[in-house]
Amino acid sequence: MPCAGRGALTIVVAPDSFKGTSTAADVAEAMAAGVRSVLGSTVNIVQCPLADGGEGTLDSFAASASLAIREVPTVDAIGRPRIARIGISPDGRLGVIEAAEANGLIHVSDVDLQPMAAHSYGVGLLARELLDAGVSEVLLCIGGTASNDGGTGFLAALGARFLDDGGHEVVLGASGLSKIRTVDLSGLHPRASGVLIRVAVDVDNPLTGASGAARVFGPQKGATLTQVQEIDAGLAQLAVVIAAMSDIDVTTTAGMGAAGGMPACLVGLLKAVIMPGSDLVLRSLGFAEQCENADLVITGEGAFDSQSLRGKVIEGVVRAVGDRCPIVVIAGRVALSAQEARDAGVTAALSIARGPATMDEMAASTTDLIYNATAHVVAMFIARTESPTNGELPLGGGPSKSHR
Amino acid sequence: MPCAGRGALTIVVAPDSFKGTSTAADVAEAMAAGVRSVLGSTVNIVQCPLADGGEGTLDSFAASASLAIREVPTVDAIGRPRIARIGISPDGRLGVIEAAEANGLIHVSDVDLQPMAAHSYGVGLLARELLDAGVSEVLLCIGGTASNDGGTGFLAALGARFLDDGGHEVVLGASGLSKIRTVDLSGLHPRASGVLIRVAVDVDNPLTGASGAARVFGPQKGATLTQVQEIDAGLAQLAVVIAAMSDIDVTTTAGMGAAGGMPACLVGLLKAVIMPGSDLVLRSLGFAEQCENADLVITGEGAFDSQSLRGKVIEGVVRAVGDRCPIVVIAGRVALSAQEARDAGVTAALSIARGPATMDEMAASTTDLIYNATAHVVAMFIARTESPTNGELPLGGGPSKSHR
Repeated sequence: MPCAGRGALTIVVAPDSFKGTSTAADVAEAMAAGVRSVLGSTVNIVQCPLADGGEGTLDSFAASASLAIREVPTVDAIGRPRIARIGISPDGRLGVIEAAEANGLIHVSDVDLQPMAAHSYGVGLLARELLDAGVSEVLLCIGGTASNDGGTGFLAALGARFLDDGGHEVVLGASGLSKIRTVDLSGLHPRASGVLIRVAVDVDNPLTGASGAARVFGPQKGATLTQVQEIDAGLAQLAVVIAAMSDIDVTTTAGMGAAGGMPACLVGLLKAVIMPGSDLVLRSLGFAEQCENADLVITGEGAFDSQSLRGKVIEGVVRAVGDRCPIVVIAGRVALSAQEARDAGVTAALSIARGPATMDEMAASTTDLIYNATAHVVAMFIARTESPTNGELPLGGGPSKSHR
Repeated sequence: MPCAGRGALTIVVAPDSFKGTSTAADVAEAMAAGVRSVLGSTVNIVQCPLADGGEGTLDSFAASASLAIREVPTVDAIGRPRIARIGISPDGRLGVIEAAEANGLIHVSDVDLQPMAAHSYGVGLLARELLDAGVSEVLLCIGGTASNDGGTGFLAALGARFLDDGGHEVVLGASGLSKIRTVDLSGLHPRASGVLIRVAVDVDNPLTGASGAARVFGPQKGATLTQVQEIDAGLAQLAVVIAAMSDIDVTTTAGMGAAGGMPACLVGLLKAVIMPGSDLVLRSLGFAEQCENADLVITGEGAFDSQSLRGKVIEGVVRAVGDRCPIVVIAGRVALSAQEARDAGVTAALSIARGPATMDEMAASTTDLIYNATAHVVAMFIARTESPTNGELPLGGGPSKSHR
């Protein structure tokens, strides 16, 4: 049986962002510095900032996969011009979009919420840029959007025409949904059907019904009770049209209710696939492969709690790494006990807190605290095999004694 | 070269108290439980609660060395009867006294401070009990006392008579010091000269002068400026008398200014020795020997800061353990950086904090937090050699993959 830890260690630092204080890339950088502070140049460090398909995913990809970021013109949820970012992988094959870059709720916070008018046309314009650039795969991160249009705006931007009884195009947004009777796809972007679109969803909600997009998320987007009912009926009508055209029933699949039903048109009419955001991110980054030779994986996020184990980054890390090597979580707040962490497949979980402190105090020095916590973790991790009495690194004169 | 960590691990848990929240014994118990939560019965745990010779030392000894605690009658700093505790080792050879159990400032907080009258007679009565019990060594922990009498009260309780010009006994307390011209030791307890008294001091201050007992500590004990000068002069006069009788100059030794100069009479007239409290405690407990087979030593205290490295428990632990095995500090607050900790000989230092929290919130669940932090530390410590890819504990089916 071989001895442990003979060669240079490989340590993967693969955190989520610490929401509100540090991006995943900054956290990974601080962790890497913490590792180096203990092991110097004798360690292989793999920096892999992660994301859960929500806000920050584009940045994480930019850092982890050297995505080139482009700023392109588009429109916001109510059609006003704005500049948004998209990312393209170095080999040009993968394009990444964060829907909220275009039609995020935050970009229309300067006006009254318009749940019936808000649309996803601007997100489709970003996809159009990627198709024109020749990517073969699009990773679409949704979440934080203002629209409730079932993705009709997205498809309209790619050339689809949503038609009413009279063969006229319906208006953009949720208000047009109930009038849709058919979709004219003849003008669709020529590359739209040749591209694989993966949609990262962060909720399980179905498209319609009691836990559907309108009922659960409509009110956050400004919908009144009447509007909620109108949106729900509109999405149901959209589903009927989609089913007639594609034999796909988008009302039965969990996750279709994300982002105002945006996946409905993408899955139903463009054969997009949806999957949990963190899984999609880790898969796109080849995370499991990056961990293949790891001796230790250090991950982390702002708060490590029971949510972390449901479709978030840390759950994805645990699933990808399995028991191939220890996984340590470094977090702003650790709400799980040591036993709960171990039960979830996490070796140990440490807060970056160094004593009594307020949230603001900790936020003011997050990366410093992460650097320090990582150094302590690594020092403990190597302590056993570094210790002279365990037979390694024997010292010429033996350990010093302090008996007096 | 042998592989690391083959047999059962031996882990020493040797914390100081977390002052104000948990005794060292409680902390050690929580740490031991944390170790067991990870390693079950496959680990040898050595519980060794420590102390720095100050408050809590008696309790730590009771827990670490199975000291039998006796409650005996004595008097407080102003002569009022009270019951105080002393400890005697199972073999009857070592007796332990905490001076403040008798003449602690805290026991006279119900009346106005009396810096000129307060004395150490009650501490001497405790020593008398130990002499009567037949111990051959007394460990005297001072600190937190109300007296400024240079230890005259202590010796008076053992039968010494401090005499003035006219051969009359002077009054107890600092007010009698300046009148002392000689000491009659003829009535001294017969075992007083046959016992080795070790005095644990926690400060470097000399007996007299600008950084002496009166100037530095007198005001805390209620002395006015005039009284400070009077006490300082009295202690100087006591030193003159001691030097005339013993050829020992107690004014030149650092530490004599502890506890109102209590060591002066003990060192000058009873050949007591003084040493830093933590050293004395660790030595008396045979701590270095207890760590001889340790794979890991976990220590801790309320606040791990630069003070911890100056004569406190953690410095003593580092000196005793050296580089024989890793040393991890678990503390309420960690003020030192990872690098500073390593420079001080500490492998890693973790706060028990699990996120933003107030001091009160943390204090309310100190032992739970310690238990958890210890579990995380141990899990990290064993992680490297427990990991299947490192050649240990190979799993039949190999590690699970999550590629999909």
